[in-house]
Amino acid sequence: MTTAAELWTRLENLPRPTLGELFSADRDGGEGADEPGGADRVAMLSGRIELDDGGILFDWSKTHLDRAAIAAFEELAVAMDFAGMRAKLFGGEVVNPTEGRAADHATLRGTGDEAKVEEAMALIERMGMLVEAIHQGALGEVEHLIHIGIGGSALGPALGVDALSRDLSYCDVHVVSNIDGVALEQAFAACDPAKTLIAVASKTFTTIETMTNAESALKWLHDNGVSDPGGRVIALTANPEGAVEWGVDETRILPFQESVGGRYSIWSSIGFPIAMAVGMEDFRAFLAGARAVDAHFRDTDGAANLVLRAAFADLYYTRVRGCQTRAVFAYDERLGLFPDYLQQLEMESNGKRVTADMRPVDGPTAPITWGGVGTDAQHAVFQLLHQGTHLVPVDFIASIAPGDDLDPAHHRILLMNCFAQGAALMAGKAGEDPARNYPGDRPSATILCDDLDAGALGALIAFHEHRTFANAVLMGINPFDQFGVELGKAMAKAIEKGGEEFDASTDALLKTAGLAG
Amino acid sequence: MTTAAELWTRLENLPRPTLGELFSADRDGGEGADEPGGADRVAMLSGRIELDDGGILFDWSKTHLDRAAIAAFEELAVAMDFAGMRAKLFGGEVVNPTEGRAADHATLRGTGDEAKVEEAMALIERMGMLVEAIHQGALGEVEHLIHIGIGGSALGPALGVDALSRDLSYCDVHVVSNIDGVALEQAFAACDPAKTLIAVASKTFTTIETMTNAESALKWLHDNGVSDPGGRVIALTANPEGAVEWGVDETRILPFQESVGGRYSIWSSIGFPIAMAVGMEDFRAFLAGARAVDAHFRDTDGAANLVLRAAFADLYYTRVRGCQTRAVFAYDERLGLFPDYLQQLEMESNGKRVTADMRPVDGPTAPITWGGVGTDAQHAVFQLLHQGTHLVPVDFIASIAPGDDLDPAHHRILLMNCFAQGAALMAGKAGEDPARNYPGDRPSATILCDDLDAGALGALIAFHEHRTFANAVLMGINPFDQFGVELGKAMAKAIEKGGEEFDASTDALLKTAGLAG
Repeated sequence: MTTAAELWTRLENLPRPTLGELFSADRDGGEGADEPGGADRVAMLSGRIELDDGGILFDWSKTHLDRAAIAAFEELAVAMDFAGMRAKLFGGEVVNPTEGRAADHATLRGTGDEAKVEEAMALIERMGMLVEAIHQGALGEVEHLIHIGIGGSALGPALGVDALSRDLSYCDVHVVSNIDGVALEQAFAACDPAKTLIAVASKTFTTIETMTNAESALKWLHDNGVSDPGGRVIALTANPEGAVEWGVDETRILPFQESVGGRYSIWSSIGFPIAMAVGMEDFRAFLAGARAVDAHFRDTDGAANLVLRAAFADLYYTRVRGCQTRAVFAYDERLGLFPDYLQQLEMESNGKRVTADMRPVDGPTAPITWGGVGTDAQHAVFQLLHQGTHLVPVDFIASIAPGDDLDPAHHRILLMNCFAQGAALMAGKAGEDPARNYPGDRPSATILCDDLDAGALGALIAFHEHRTFANAVLMGINPFDQFGVELGKAMAKAIEKGGEEFDASTDALLKTAGLAG
Repeated sequence: MTTAAELWTRLENLPRPTLGELFSADRDGGEGADEPGGADRVAMLSGRIELDDGGILFDWSKTHLDRAAIAAFEELAVAMDFAGMRAKLFGGEVVNPTEGRAADHATLRGTGDEAKVEEAMALIERMGMLVEAIHQGALGEVEHLIHIGIGGSALGPALGVDALSRDLSYCDVHVVSNIDGVALEQAFAACDPAKTLIAVASKTFTTIETMTNAESALKWLHDNGVSDPGGRVIALTANPEGAVEWGVDETRILPFQESVGGRYSIWSSIGFPIAMAVGMEDFRAFLAGARAVDAHFRDTDGAANLVLRAAFADLYYTRVRGCQTRAVFAYDERLGLFPDYLQQLEMESNGKRVTADMRPVDGPTAPITWGGVGTDAQHAVFQLLHQGTHLVPVDFIASIAPGDDLDPAHHRILLMNCFAQGAALMAGKAGEDPARNYPGDRPSATILCDDLDAGALGALIAFHEHRTFANAVLMGINPFDQFGVELGKAMAKAIEKGGEEFDASTDALLKTAGLAG
């Protein structure tokens, strides 16, 4: 069998036709053409995943993937035992060896090992009962929910609420993450304490930001005349004992599994604020959208697997073309938080330097994932994409159905701009002078939803979870641990404790800020 | 004189001590030490800019700049005629040769050519009179302002309002930029049409997103019983004739100079929504903070110029260490939009591929500028910073004075985490196994404000404007044009017009979305 190292060398040495050459129409059906061009290329590199209602188109034709590169990546998938690792993931086996854990987030949407799915469904059921009880008045009049969590316990809830509850919301949700008290005060200013619940979301129920914010939120309820502040708390955690100890009544604790990682926890009770805002029916549709992607990813082999194909392109740019970044631009205001969500998912998962078996990695790992919202980003960062010196592979995401009820011109202009940018990045244009010259040959992929409903959002997130996993498997790394965040936490604790000397710069900063021991 | 090319070669070939080596205490005062370590190094690479009220500390000691690199960069500044270009900038001469324009944003804060400053002050005065008249009721009861603009006409207003008006606001401001109607609908939902003004901000008064949103906003006022919707519009533009033609009465047009670029326009009437929210006194303090930085940047030579020193470090990482990105983390909730603001400022200004005299650049230009808010980012992206394979130079920004009135623990933990991250990135730590190993030697700079008030925000923004300019001068590029954004706009127009064929992927996407001609 060809080794991974040999395949990377082969990929390095492949010819590098431009996108224009790859699309050149004379290849289409040309006698003896070994590479399709134009429409045939689009057919080869576009595909749909069908959802319960509508579906999503994934067009990867405007990347530099060609048959030779795809063939090499398919061999790489074999060399790295992609099929075996995928079977382990969905079989509930250990795929996080440093922590000796499975990664069971897909069970929450009904995919995977039967016993584990059953356990997960019971947890969703429990959450659903509480959500519906609250909607029916079991905790009195509830208008606001302050959701306190950080990282994986905040980015998913914030995204889900922002994307899905603009038209109709059962509850006004404020997600507070930062330890900076300014964040919590902003939520206080928007809520009536008598009608406010506090969700405390922490996998370990020990996260310092979350527990500090939770204490301050209880104090705020108390100071504003709420007689039983503790009774207004819902705990979302994989450590229910910790929540009980902290004082939350068991009936208001919504547990999730230890084997669900923070950045993969939106499907679990961490999604409680989403369900509070949009209702359980939409939350279940959200899970179903993800389930459809699970099935595609689990059951499709080689580059026909749209997720795996995306990972091929990702790795081609990171490892062969030297791209340190990848950008995503959502041409939809409702997906304004999606780039931040993906940033955590990809960078925390795959920002690693050792393989799953503890050897140094043999190439760069996760790029810096960044992006924004179209058309805004066109007026802010696209200058660099078109005329800068760094090659940035770009994903565009859009929805055919509009999210607004204004003049249809709004949505039409939005979509036309989205497609125009992909076309312009690829085509480039000779300018009247060098400053007006566009080199072109810049890759992009387009993800086009029929509609951006709860199912489509679930599908988009699951697509990227599996894309991250596929990238990790092909690089041989473990995407499910995150030891990189521990050192900074330990040093913050050492500062708090005092008596320790740091570097001269840090000591001077602490002194300047009045924090020296 | 040594040429720039020779200096870049020298920089490439300099020894590369680690940060730990640069800080090693035994250098301090050591006999014959040619490089200060520890506290002496901190003294050499930290400096303050004093403002009317308080000041800001800039600590660049935890970067790899050493005496040899600084000396080479100081020679580079001479080779690129930095002093001459700076004199041109402040003298109101043409520094944007492709468009034959000066860059006069500093005149709005009172710095530069006398006649131009006088003209700028008159414009500020005019804005101040309108703001104060509105605050005094000249346009009836005004509670809300929907500010419509995009790119440079949106990012500054959004940042200024978010950073400065949380405690006290004279007016509830909503910044709408995206053509996606969802954005405008969100603002509508939060405003009472009878008490709402519409600011239309566009340098050319032709920006398609802004004009479309403005039309829809007028329709909303009309549909909701406002008898004279046009009378509720304030125009912020460098094309007052265009605004008159569009139907705005001259008394409600606040012009600014053609020689102020969009991404440098926060100081001009584009800052109107900030002044509406915080009042003219704070807006003038904001200008004064920027003026203090102007004076430092204009009057200080070599690496003692804190702005120029920052540019030295930026270019060292981009051009010598191969960094494609630079990150900024504001450890302050009020600066949540600052990374987005900087992203535009740096990437649109310096994401170029030709020099000001139309030759291909001799190295990489602007890195991708990205970032987020601390402590949130620690739980999202710091994994990659500590253990990923890409070197990312980081800026931390924080304020000694808290922005909140909660338990002081919130702000103390915030600052301790900020300093701990810089310390941890530099120090690293040997782990018990490779997955728990931190290589360290990762650079960061810290910008520490005494307080984050209007003056400090103005100073922070001006610091970064000049930093961007200094980077451009040392690379020999023109930071003030942005032709890279034109091609996409032209292609969107071609799509709208119809009848043209694009690449097969774009044609298929248009057809799928029902937009084919």
